[in-house]
Amino acid sequence: MAGSTYGTIFKITTWGESHGKAIGVVIDGCPAGLPLNEAVIQRYLDRRRPGASSITTQRREADAVEILSGVFDGRTTGTPISLLVRNTSQISKDYSEIASCYRPGHADYTFDAKYGFRDYRGGGRSSGRETIGRVAAGAIACKILEQMGIFVCAYTRSIGPVEADMSRFDRQAILETPTAMPDPQADQAALKHLETARQKQDSVGGCMECIAEGLPAGIGDPVFEKLDANLAKAIMSIGAVKAVEIGDGCQTALRYGSENNDAFRTENGSVTKTTNHAGGILGGISDGSTVIIRAYVKPTPSIFRTQQTVSQSGEEIQINIKGRHDPIIVPRAVVVMECMTALTILDALLVNMTARLDSIVSFYRK
Amino acid sequence: MAGSTYGTIFKITTWGESHGKAIGVVIDGCPAGLPLNEAVIQRYLDRRRPGASSITTQRREADAVEILSGVFDGRTTGTPISLLVRNTSQISKDYSEIASCYRPGHADYTFDAKYGFRDYRGGGRSSGRETIGRVAAGAIACKILEQMGIFVCAYTRSIGPVEADMSRFDRQAILETPTAMPDPQADQAALKHLETARQKQDSVGGCMECIAEGLPAGIGDPVFEKLDANLAKAIMSIGAVKAVEIGDGCQTALRYGSENNDAFRTENGSVTKTTNHAGGILGGISDGSTVIIRAYVKPTPSIFRTQQTVSQSGEEIQINIKGRHDPIIVPRAVVVMECMTALTILDALLVNMTARLDSIVSFYRK
Amino acid sequence: MAGSTYGTIFKITTWGESHGKAIGVVIDGCPAGLPLNEAVIQRYLDRRRPGASSITTQRREADAVEILSGVFDGRTTGTPISLLVRNTSQISKDYSEIASCYRPGHADYTFDAKYGFRDYRGGGRSSGRETIGRVAAGAIACKILEQMGIFVCAYTRSIGPVEADMSRFDRQAILETPTAMPDPQADQAALKHLETARQKQDSVGGCMECIAEGLPAGIGDPVFEKLDANLAKAIMSIGAVKAVEIGDGCQTALRYGSENNDAFRTENGSVTKTTNHAGGILGGISDGSTVIIRAYVKPTPSIFRTQQTVSQSGEEIQINIKGRHDPIIVPRAVVVMECMTALTILDALLVNMTARLDSIVSFYRK
Amino acid sequence: MAGSTYGTIFKITTWGESHGKAIGVVIDGCPAGLPLNEAVIQRYLDRRRPGASSITTQRREADAVEILSGVFDGRTTGTPISLLVRNTSQISKDYSEIASCYRPGHADYTFDAKYGFRDYRGGGRSSGRETIGRVAAGAIACKILEQMGIFVCAYTRSIGPVEADMSRFDRQAILETPTAMPDPQADQAALKHLETARQKQDSVGGCMECIAEGLPAGIGDPVFEKLDANLAKAIMSIGAVKAVEIGDGCQTALRYGSENNDAFRTENGSVTKTTNHAGGILGGISDGSTVIIRAYVKPTPSIFRTQQTVSQSGEEIQINIKGRHDPIIVPRAVVVMECMTALTILDALLVNMTARLDSIVSFYRK
Repeated sequence: MAGSTYGTIFKITTWGESHGKAIGVVIDGCPAGLPLNEAVIQRYLDRRRPGASSITTQRREADAVEILSGVFDGRTTGTPISLLVRNTSQISKDYSEIASCYRPGHADYTFDAKYGFRDYRGGGRSSGRETIGRVAAGAIACKILEQMGIFVCAYTRSIGPVEADMSRFDRQAILETPTAMPDPQADQAALKHLETARQKQDSVGGCMECIAEGLPAGIGDPVFEKLDANLAKAIMSIGAVKAVEIGDGCQTALRYGSENNDAFRTENGSVTKTTNHAGGILGGISDGSTVIIRAYVKPTPSIFRTQQTVSQSGEEIQINIKGRHDPIIVPRAVVVMECMTALTILDALLVNMTARLDSIVSFYRK
Repeated sequence: MAGSTYGTIFKITTWGESHGKAIGVVIDGCPAGLPLNEAVIQRYLDRRRPGASSITTQRREADAVEILSGVFDGRTTGTPISLLVRNTSQISKDYSEIASCYRPGHADYTFDAKYGFRDYRGGGRSSGRETIGRVAAGAIACKILEQMGIFVCAYTRSIGPVEADMSRFDRQAILETPTAMPDPQADQAALKHLETARQKQDSVGGCMECIAEGLPAGIGDPVFEKLDANLAKAIMSIGAVKAVEIGDGCQTALRYGSENNDAFRTENGSVTKTTNHAGGILGGISDGSTVIIRAYVKPTPSIFRTQQTVSQSGEEIQINIKGRHDPIIVPRAVVVMECMTALTILDALLVNMTARLDSIVSFYRK
Repeated sequence: MAGSTYGTIFKITTWGESHGKAIGVVIDGCPAGLPLNEAVIQRYLDRRRPGASSITTQRREADAVEILSGVFDGRTTGTPISLLVRNTSQISKDYSEIASCYRPGHADYTFDAKYGFRDYRGGGRSSGRETIGRVAAGAIACKILEQMGIFVCAYTRSIGPVEADMSRFDRQAILETPTAMPDPQADQAALKHLETARQKQDSVGGCMECIAEGLPAGIGDPVFEKLDANLAKAIMSIGAVKAVEIGDGCQTALRYGSENNDAFRTENGSVTKTTNHAGGILGGISDGSTVIIRAYVKPTPSIFRTQQTVSQSGEEIQINIKGRHDPIIVPRAVVVMECMTALTILDALLVNMTARLDSIVSFYRK
Repeated sequence: MAGSTYGTIFKITTWGESHGKAIGVVIDGCPAGLPLNEAVIQRYLDRRRPGASSITTQRREADAVEILSGVFDGRTTGTPISLLVRNTSQISKDYSEIASCYRPGHADYTFDAKYGFRDYRGGGRSSGRETIGRVAAGAIACKILEQMGIFVCAYTRSIGPVEADMSRFDRQAILETPTAMPDPQADQAALKHLETARQKQDSVGGCMECIAEGLPAGIGDPVFEKLDANLAKAIMSIGAVKAVEIGDGCQTALRYGSENNDAFRTENGSVTKTTNHAGGILGGISDGSTVIIRAYVKPTPSIFRTQQTVSQSGEEIQINIKGRHDPIIVPRAVVVMECMTALTILDALLVNMTARLDSIVSFYRK
């Protein structure tokens, strides 16, 4: 089926395989009049680009984006924006050995079970490179949100046992540390942990967090299209994410109601809350506080240790994975989480414009 | 916007408010030929019905379902099935006091922020009674899945600090214990914990788990419509759920790849895994193992203690909630989780029928 | 599949069979704040009600609508509106003879081919009674459009060879003549034609037209969601419609470009056209002129003459249809066309609110 | 909004402007296992390519298609297929004069009304070049349908007053005559008519017809997703189409029921009809007969005569259109109609696989 499209009004369709000719995305429903050029998008793509540090795959790609449609005289026209990134550094032979067997923790077996065969080169469609389309589209969503005074920011919360100390939160560090942690000290400790894992030919899991500030109250829908439900889907659709929390998440299950309820109060004439256990969402609708989402990411399944598995023909075999693989997924997935959050929030804002009759009538009366 | 519809092929649309005339659901896309009558559905509705035990609200409703369309001669016809449950026990005066203020932890404020006003009686559309439609539709989904050899089962995993011991797993206990725990001993401990909380005019959170057995490998789509992404949305759309895990969930973030990867092996000629950390899903597609989902539920926000809040006119006030409220949401939400899981899995199975050309061609050749 | 839902933002889901317990519709996505009660809807339902004149079926039903949800204190709340009409005058035995054979021109055979069996009573889901849900929902759409200064009006253009003379256009006559013609003289001629047909145990086709006035320029989308494309679908989805024209329709195929192009001019500072061959739509987007749609409706397939057909078991047989049938479909379908047009236009207006970035930014800044 | 996507399961998203860098389409939901290469698609693109004869625009483009994703080892993988056609022959200066005025019969004014500004080069997104994406995707749909024994074929039925004589129907002539008429004699007469029009600096309208043979009975859904409703939308979404007929279309409005009903009979044990006034669809569902659709196309709005219009600043002016324009749209639109029909029918077939429970259960049991 058609599972490569995301969004109701601001709709993106990603396409492309890790070792195909190119990767891309079509954004349909981007409002007209947004100033846009390649540089706006490239800045986000560079954050997920491989080869940027010692802890990412040595595959080096420029991942240079080309805008093919939907922009005229430097502004979006309201028609679909097609973005293209050519694949330039495929080394497909690295994958020839695994063409006929199933790597543990990967989608090789499930793709075969679904489609009967698969593009095995570099994971094909289930490669992390698929997220290039998400990030390119998300860069545009972020730019629109900024114009509305809404800022989305994701970062690494923990790597293995090493957690960022949020009292040292430093937004600049997210872009500068190899781990995308907002705490340079934790970054150093995490790098050490990663180095140890690498020496053991192993990989490591971690946690990433995303916040959205400036979102007005009233966004999201009450039943199936709850803002938190859509965020959960958006974030869980990022490869390797195994859990999603909103606000205090799992912790709330251990609390009493009197501990967990956020009291309302007023500040400068508007309603706010004394605490934010809820993570900015009540009944699926934003409450005006910071939206907080956390994602737990499994360790990279590609490890260099010998593993037990099964071949396509059903034999039990041993596998030694080669190729170029990150020892941890989190640092490069942080920008993907930021983008998926931005896409979800922007779409909810657009959908919400039709919630009240008086707003609609006055919109068309102007 | 239209946020009351769920599903791609097996599509349900719920409607109704807690204190309106009725609650209901329309199921569009149910395949023709399923034997169906009210009793099949009532069995599921009875599991979420209030008044069944000491730990649920004292609101007593028969919640009797009526099939209005889509069934002829005892079988579904393929046309929409409309199901209706009349509300019979509304005591709306209980809510008159809270009409003009915002209950902490509830959607009162966010509804006002979105729509400009709200049906304040019993929470209106954000009431737990909205799930009647989900459960009625889910009962049908479960019956179809059973015909395909797929069984979905949800239960209470923990209540506050009291956890079920899964080595004592007893499927019958789920339906018989007031807590919906699969472990009668834990049930007793949990009831004590709840009694203590109630005496303190407080409420308690908890965790519920759902498993799906018999799902073939190959179900779910690779990118945005991953099976786990859709399950995350489905479960997070249940009121009060604040976190969703697939398989080992949050724990995987603390692991090494060598610990977390599930090795493949063969059993009776088919591919299986030695462990199931992944919870039955790889790359968004089912792998043939048991699908495992966990949901963390916040404590009931309606507590009888005095709380700080704000009135609709912006005054900071104190509120004393009255009415009839469960001290914990989990036991009655378990069947909702089971139903949302069944709906999601069934829809993925239907969508998946078009994945391979040879299957399509032979489908129409017969 | 799920084919009973219509609309993107203002979404309606109809359900119910001709001889089931009830017929209904759920409207999801109706903006909050619209004053609404049963009388608003009943006025439209009465226009399609049977038994109102000599040229409609003698089945007499009150078709009284009940609002079950989504309205509080006399206004819509933004949550789904569930509307119910109980069936009260089913005479199912009339259909027992046709249970096992296929009426020419009806959907009996195609339903069996699709679903394997069918609810044969009164045509089941393919009965004209299905349109009750469309009309009930359309009444709400019309009321919203009126608040925006947009008026939709449908009428009978011709019955058999008898055409309304548009130079005598009389809006009131549409509601008062049995034929729903805007020309009382043509109405009389048409009634004579119908009487002749009835005496021959035959039925008659006709044409209906719908205009929408006050629609601003800029509504509709350029490619697949063209306003005319969506209108074509909406109108063709009404049973028995076999052709749809926009503006001058078929006639344009015989013209030269110099005849068919509508010249632009200005009037009171705004752009308008000297003619309206285009029917108010250019490139799929409204141009500010009156939108004009025409639908050609086949004769009622249920005729009392003996016809050749085939039984469910494959025998060639003769059939004599009994029951209560209109000799022409058009007069009662006119209000359905009006409603489907209103639903389509309203949805396009809601979708269009997100077309320009500056409008979105200023919407959220206020 | 997102109006560039078409289809429910077999979903296509087109993008690109007439004078942008490229035109393309993403096909999501194409089943795995279809042999596919560029040549399959190019054959269809060549049928709509400009410059092929005296009656098409002199813009000459190779319109060479490149497959960027979704195909591996010569077969579709089930993942999105991205197709790209570079624009190579833009002469944008031809359009500089019309940048600030509204061409009669074009979408210039309505685009400005909607989006606030437009890509005026060559019509931008409303150019006929947008259909490249539809045809590229439709070529794939046709290939799949062929494997199921279903054949779709469109041709020119009339040009101005010159009609093809269907008793001389010659399928090969469709591909060989410049007019795409199935009757070489009518082709000659039509060419003369076009030459006369061209000398008068004028353009001509026409009618095209499409038939689908081999479609099994039972395809399409009963209410809003009727097969004829979806075909009407698909065909009306092609630029310049102003009317759509199914079967005998408008003619049925002038008939008696006894003339218009198609009697059923049996042939070789299966149900068929003695006539096919219905055009192969009853109650929105295919009946096993040939599906017949007709589309009426207005004359090319770009004519070289001086026309009255309005400038962007609101002045009434005269316009002389330059550039390269076909004197008739029909011959190159025929393949677009064929492709939109194929896409619609294929999607209906895929959706229909879930209509019956027994088929679903046996699908998964194998």
